[in-house]
Amino acid sequence: MKRSFINVLLSLLLFTNTAWAADPLPSWNDTAPKQAIVAFVEQVTREGSPDFVPAAERIATFDNDGTLWAEQPIYFQFLFAIDRVKALAPQHPEWKTEEPFASLLRGDMKSALAGGEHAMLEIVMSTHAGMTTQAFEKTVTDWIATATHPKTRRLLTEMVYQPMLELLAYLRANGFKTFIVSGGGIEFMRPWTQKVYGIPPEQVIGSSIKTAFERRDGQPALVRLPEINFIDDKAGKPVGIHMHIGRRPIASFGNSDGDFEMLEWTTAGAGLRFGLLVHHTDDNREWAYDRDSPIGRLDRGLDEGPRRGWTIVDMRDDWKVIFPFEMR
Amino acid sequence: MKRSFINVLLSLLLFTNTAWAADPLPSWNDTAPKQAIVAFVEQVTREGSPDFVPAAERIATFDNDGTLWAEQPIYFQFLFAIDRVKALAPQHPEWKTEEPFASLLRGDMKSALAGGEHAMLEIVMSTHAGMTTQAFEKTVTDWIATATHPKTRRLLTEMVYQPMLELLAYLRANGFKTFIVSGGGIEFMRPWTQKVYGIPPEQVIGSSIKTAFERRDGQPALVRLPEINFIDDKAGKPVGIHMHIGRRPIASFGNSDGDFEMLEWTTAGAGLRFGLLVHHTDDNREWAYDRDSPIGRLDRGLDEGPRRGWTIVDMRDDWKVIFPFEMR
Repeated sequence: MKRSFINVLLSLLLFTNTAWAADPLPSWNDTAPKQAIVAFVEQVTREGSPDFVPAAERIATFDNDGTLWAEQPIYFQFLFAIDRVKALAPQHPEWKTEEPFASLLRGDMKSALAGGEHAMLEIVMSTHAGMTTQAFEKTVTDWIATATHPKTRRLLTEMVYQPMLELLAYLRANGFKTFIVSGGGIEFMRPWTQKVYGIPPEQVIGSSIKTAFERRDGQPALVRLPEINFIDDKAGKPVGIHMHIGRRPIASFGNSDGDFEMLEWTTAGAGLRFGLLVHHTDDNREWAYDRDSPIGRLDRGLDEGPRRGWTIVDMRDDWKVIFPFEMR
Repeated sequence: MKRSFINVLLSLLLFTNTAWAADPLPSWNDTAPKQAIVAFVEQVTREGSPDFVPAAERIATFDNDGTLWAEQPIYFQFLFAIDRVKALAPQHPEWKTEEPFASLLRGDMKSALAGGEHAMLEIVMSTHAGMTTQAFEKTVTDWIATATHPKTRRLLTEMVYQPMLELLAYLRANGFKTFIVSGGGIEFMRPWTQKVYGIPPEQVIGSSIKTAFERRDGQPALVRLPEINFIDDKAGKPVGIHMHIGRRPIASFGNSDGDFEMLEWTTAGAGLRFGLLVHHTDDNREWAYDRDSPIGRLDRGLDEGPRRGWTIVDMRDDWKVIFPFEMR
């Protein structure tokens, strides 16, 4: 009796983090992707398995836009930039006549973006640089607390994928260290990823602008400069992973051709590896887009993914729930 | 009886990582630096203390050369570069006449380094670039396994400071996440920091050259380019910290003026902070150098450190033991 009581106590203390009484992925249908995820995790975590991987090497990397949260009708960071242009406009009277700002302030998004990448870069630089890192962090923190989606009117932080939140938790419960590897701005994500995804700032990798160490009023400060430092997209993703993590992930999760090289790098490593692409197929509960979408284009991944052994998630058929608010 | 047995069991299970039965810093004399370290750790970890810091924010950063391991008579990474020049010389017949290689191969270090920084950069680039990251990692791993110190003949991985190893372990046992922030090459350190310091690759920040994602024989590879990416020294240290960690450390440890900005950035943050400089004062057990040393120069830190509240370690007086091999 005493012995069994202690055994129960030990089990509770020691195993709550590594074993699951209930289904760890309840929002996933019992289709091929869920089966592949569970089989992979069991193989790499079972001691004595030929595919066993020590906990320290269980690195999993996740794209953000379109993989952990939605990205339609436009990347959410661009919504932030637009709001910043509006907020900063009183200090920039010249924007009334200068493009792309003039069109943007008139609400004419199409003309504002007619300048293509150059216009977008101007909007991002004018709103993301010129302040200290502390000031920028506060601006993002304040904005994300209330920013809502233009279509659903939900908070942007509610526009996250419930099945992916469960997957992050499931991997961490099995000793994985989870990282974000996103084309989005590293400092745009860090203020809220811990709260929303359980991922701390030091496990967030993204695109960045340069910063400079300065002294302002005798206090040290890091000032954000209007100069690109690193683009964490496509072939940049393996480079960013290597720079920040210094070892190759054993599992990577993405949704677009911008994630192709990350999955390629991950799955080319020795031993059992896992690559997964989320295919946006649900025009009813979310959005349906792939080969021709200017945002989150998925073309090569759809063609080559399956023969490379990557798992393709069909959002409509493989996910019971998409957003957490559907469950309330 | 049953209850006390379970209590003991619980204590063993839950508290081995956060409390210490014995002195956690046995190689430190009971002088001011040890007292300051212990007081700081107790204040930031005691729940209810006005200076309490949640575990996730207990970030501690350590310089490497001269702080965790020795740096005399020359940075150990430069010993690696010299050995690589010798190993690669057969593939570079032109080095027989080209400086700085010709002098270096003749063993004439003084002439080899007469070209100053440019000569050193040439030596480093010619030996650190042009291969894949995997090949470089293997070269470093093989080299560090046998490389010995020119004076002591000890393995370089034995030329580490026992008191600092204890400090790393003590901080981690109190919920700190320990990072290296070094002017040395990030990929020169990562292959061995876990084994030597208990610091995993993703917690190592250092200087770097650029890498490019390529496909070689159909396999993805990261190729090291002869182009500086980032210099993690002086004002670069806070920049590197922000890029990799994304939050300000609450404690930083260094030994030279190259660490000044890191300590300045760390200790300027809100709440209780800790800065420490190791002063090399022991010409008998190690080396004595500071204001005039070309390597590990410590001048401004000695003048300003004390009035900034930084702790200065006098190696001769504050450390019972310097190297682990003294204890055998």
